[in-house]
Amino acid sequence: MNGWALDSGRFGDAAAILTGDLCLSFSEESFTEIGPRAAAGTPARRIFNVMRAEVMAGQYLDILEEVAGPVRDRAGSVERAKSIIRYKSAKYSTEHPLALGGALAGAPSGLLNGYSGFSLPLGEAFQMRDDVLGVFGDPETTGKPAGDDLREGKRTVLVGFAINQAPPSEADFLDRMLGKPDLGEDEVAEIRRVMIECGALEATESLIAELSDRAFEALERLPLEDVPLVALRQLAEAAVSRAA
Amino acid sequence: MNGWALDSGRFGDAAAILTGDLCLSFSEESFTEIGPRAAAGTPARRIFNVMRAEVMAGQYLDILEEVAGPVRDRAGSVERAKSIIRYKSAKYSTEHPLALGGALAGAPSGLLNGYSGFSLPLGEAFQMRDDVLGVFGDPETTGKPAGDDLREGKRTVLVGFAINQAPPSEADFLDRMLGKPDLGEDEVAEIRRVMIECGALEATESLIAELSDRAFEALERLPLEDVPLVALRQLAEAAVSRAA
Repeated sequence: MNGWALDSGRFGDAAAILTGDLCLSFSEESFTEIGPRAAAGTPARRIFNVMRAEVMAGQYLDILEEVAGPVRDRAGSVERAKSIIRYKSAKYSTEHPLALGGALAGAPSGLLNGYSGFSLPLGEAFQMRDDVLGVFGDPETTGKPAGDDLREGKRTVLVGFAINQAPPSEADFLDRMLGKPDLGEDEVAEIRRVMIECGALEATESLIAELSDRAFEALERLPLEDVPLVALRQLAEAAVSRAA
Repeated sequence: MNGWALDSGRFGDAAAILTGDLCLSFSEESFTEIGPRAAAGTPARRIFNVMRAEVMAGQYLDILEEVAGPVRDRAGSVERAKSIIRYKSAKYSTEHPLALGGALAGAPSGLLNGYSGFSLPLGEAFQMRDDVLGVFGDPETTGKPAGDDLREGKRTVLVGFAINQAPPSEADFLDRMLGKPDLGEDEVAEIRRVMIECGALEATESLIAELSDRAFEALERLPLEDVPLVALRQLAEAAVSRAA
């Protein structure tokens, strides 16, 4: 026998799952090695535990919406997409990491709450910016092929607005196109047209602007010294900038 | 649209992976809640970390051998199968759990090493007993259909001996049959015949007996009081008994 036996794809899946499990374990090992400040019962440990569970819940909401989205009520599509980005992305990418750093440095709970007022809307705006770029971005700048999010069937807030606001026949078209692995350039262009004409792109941009404003206002209210304030402001600007 | 969109099998796989990740996280949360005795740098934490990494390594060796076994050298099939059961099963099911209990109760390192001398061969014998029952056991007693391990393509020590000791044409036959999902009763019976005639079943039983003896001898050398000694002896006997 010359090649490998059985199904190489199944082997690859299994090896990838184990690699992920190993990385999940090692991330926790590294965190535990921090020592007493990350020990059982500390604020940092509580944040770490919540963060890890919430990202899995968010990931589940994401894959659920990919398969169930087309048969769920269209009116709820935006709220469902917001839940997904909150748990899968904003809490995991900005809110909890900032709180974790604060907790490890001994920040009191009032300051940690203040951080959330900044980091949660920032993370949501960041993810929505990323989702807009995934459909309308220049592949030269973003580094990923335009339309890949559509081919994956990702139910972003942008998609939610489109499903909700487009005429029924165009919403049906979107449902058919989302998750189609061989989506062509013409189809992607047509999806873009629908998203623009029904006002979904505009609604998403408005929401990004609103969330960004809320984040920056909360940032200015934080009792921070100049250096951390400027650093957080620069990070926040990079996160929601329109370029890439 | 009436049913769910996209691939329900893919959704099920993804949901199962997330559920597994969540369970892996929760197991670590529970362990951490033990508090100072399981904190960073303690013997218990070291055992926990090693256990978690090793079972994933063992699982990887297992799936690797399922796909690569048929093209690897037959002479090494027994040693590879032994590595798999050591890391995937014996260390995870008996050696590390016993050491973990000992470490949490404050056992000195000498006693922990003594535990390993008992629990590692016991765990290996236990897994090999399980593997023999998976092919030769009575489904009424074992509760699992005979031959399912063969349909899955599990490369057990029993299979390793058979691949190694059977005439080449019969070893080729085994390679073709292992991992065949629709393996029939006749084929399972023929595999059993090959395993008996080439001496693989006998070699496996000898190894189980040798490992069991080594475990029980090591148990009697442990400086334990009557109650834990009797309890461990009963557990060990249940683990390697021939019945189920």
